Amino acid sequence: MNEVIQTILNHRSLRHFEDKPLTDEQIKTIVTSAQAAATSSFIQAYSIIGVKDKEKKKKLAEIAGNQEYVEKNGHFFVFCADLYRHSIIGEKEQKDVTPSIESTEKFMVALIDASLAAQNAAIAAESLGLGICYIGGIRNNLEEVKKLLKTPERVIPLFGLAVGVPTKLTDKKPRLPYEHVYHEDEYEQNTEVYLTQLQKYDELISSYYEERTEGKRKDRWSEQMAIMLDRKSRMYMKEFVQKNKLNLK
Amino acid sequence: MNEVIQTILNHRSLRHFEDKPLTDEQIKTIVTSAQAAATSSFIQAYSIIGVKDKEKKKKLAEIAGNQEYVEKNGHFFVFCADLYRHSIIGEKEQKDVTPSIESTEKFMVALIDASLAAQNAAIAAESLGLGICYIGGIRNNLEEVKKLLKTPERVIPLFGLAVGVPTKLTDKKPRLPYEHVYHEDEYEQNTEVYLTQLQKYDELISSYYEERTEGKRKDRWSEQMAIMLDRKSRMYMKEFVQKNKLNLK
Repeated sequence: MNEVIQTILNHRSLRHFEDKPLTDEQIKTIVTSAQAAATSSFIQAYSIIGVKDKEKKKKLAEIAGNQEYVEKNGHFFVFCADLYRHSIIGEKEQKDVTPSIESTEKFMVALIDASLAAQNAAIAAESLGLGICYIGGIRNNLEEVKKLLKTPERVIPLFGLAVGVPTKLTDKKPRLPYEHVYHEDEYEQNTEVYLTQLQKYDELISSYYEERTEGKRKDRWSEQMAIMLDRKSRMYMKEFVQKNKLNLK
Repeated sequence: MNEVIQTILNHRSLRHFEDKPLTDEQIKTIVTSAQAAATSSFIQAYSIIGVKDKEKKKKLAEIAGNQEYVEKNGHFFVFCADLYRHSIIGEKEQKDVTPSIESTEKFMVALIDASLAAQNAAIAAESLGLGICYIGGIRNNLEEVKKLLKTPERVIPLFGLAVGVPTKLTDKKPRLPYEHVYHEDEYEQNTEVYLTQLQKYDELISSYYEERTEGKRKDRWSEQMAIMLDRKSRMYMKEFVQKNKLNLK
C-alpha cells in the first residue's frame, strides 16, 4: 500500500488540537493542494476563507453549537460555493449569465467543486501530520456566518475545516459495507438484500460503541440516522440559498 | 514535498486510456479509499455504481456528448447523492424522516459527501499510476442515466469518474490566482482588486492556450466562462431533482 492510500485510509476526524497556528507555508500548501483538484468545465466555482481573527473564530464556534475545536486549532478554513466571480465576469463580458448562475445545475457544480477542493486540502493536511475535522455546524446559522465573513450574494459558506496539531487521537469508525455502497452496473434495489446489509452494519456499529463505552452506548446506525433525521434541522436552507440567488431555477 | 502532496499537485484530467480493465483489487482499493472520507454526521449519503457492461458504457458515452473515454477506459464509476437508504431506514425505524430528506440542507449534505468520497477515489487512483477524468456530461440527461443504472428515488447520479492506464498525458492547467481564491478573515469584495486579479489570470490563460496551439487559440478565462454561462444548459435539473424527491423544501 502506497503512502497516499495509507494517508487516505488512516483518516479520522480529530477534535483536540494544540494552540499552535499553522505556518504560512503550511496554509499555502493546503490551499494550493485544494486548487489542484478537478473542476467542472474549468469553472472553479468556490472560494476558501481562512479565519485567523480570534473574535470571528469564537463566534463561529458558538454558531457551530459551541464546538471548542472551531476556536482552538491551528487554522480554520471555510469552504464556500462561489458563483459571485462569474456574475462579475458576466457584467464585464456583457453576457447574460444570470439564468445559468441561478440554476440548480450550477448550484450543484459549485458544491461539487468546493467539496473536491476541500478533500484535497484535508488529505494534504493529514499528509503533513496534521489532524482535521470538517465542521458542518457552521450551517446552523449561515446568515450570521455571511455577516461575519462578509460573503456577497452567490456565495454560500458550506462547511469549515479545522486543522491543527492533534493532541488526542480517536478511532476510525467503520463505514457501511462495501457491497452496500458499491453497486455493479445497476443500483441494488432488492429491499431484502438491502436490509440484510444494513442489519449487518447495525450490529457492527452497535458493538463498536459498546466496546468503546463499556457497554453504556450501543446504538445501531439505523437508529442513529432515524433519530437524527426525525429532528428537522436547518430547514431555512432553501430560503437562504435562494435569497443569495442560487438554486432558483 | 511528500508523496501525497506530489500526487495531488500532479493532477491533470486525462482522456485517453488503454483498453485494459482495472483489476478487482484496484477497484476495491479505490472504493475503500472513497469510503474513508469524512461524512457529515456519519450520514454516508452516497453510492457508487461501477459500470462494466459495454452497452451501458456506450450509452453513457453518448449521453455525455460522445466522449469516447467514457466508453474506453479501465473502469467507469458513477458517484451518486443517495438518501434512498435513509428513507428505507425511516420506514424501518418508524420515524418521520421525510421532511429532512427532502430539505435543501440534506441535498447539500449528500452532494458534499459524494464529492469528498469521489476526490479520495480520484487521488487513490492517481497514486496507483492511473489517470482519471471526472465526467459531468452524464448530467446532460439524468433521466436516461437513471433508467440505465436503475437508480431509485432520492438518488441523483452526479458525475462519472473514468479511470484507466493513460496513453496520452496532458498539461496541467493553471488555476485562479491563490489570493483570488483564498481570502483571509473576510471575503474580498473590492471590485477593483477582484478585477485586477482576474485580468492577471486572463492573461496567463490566454498565453497558456497560445503556446499550446501555435497561436490558434488565445481565449481568456473570463471570456470562456462568460460564453459557457451565456449558453443555458441542463436547465431541467431542478425539476429532475425535485421529481426524485430531493431539494424540495
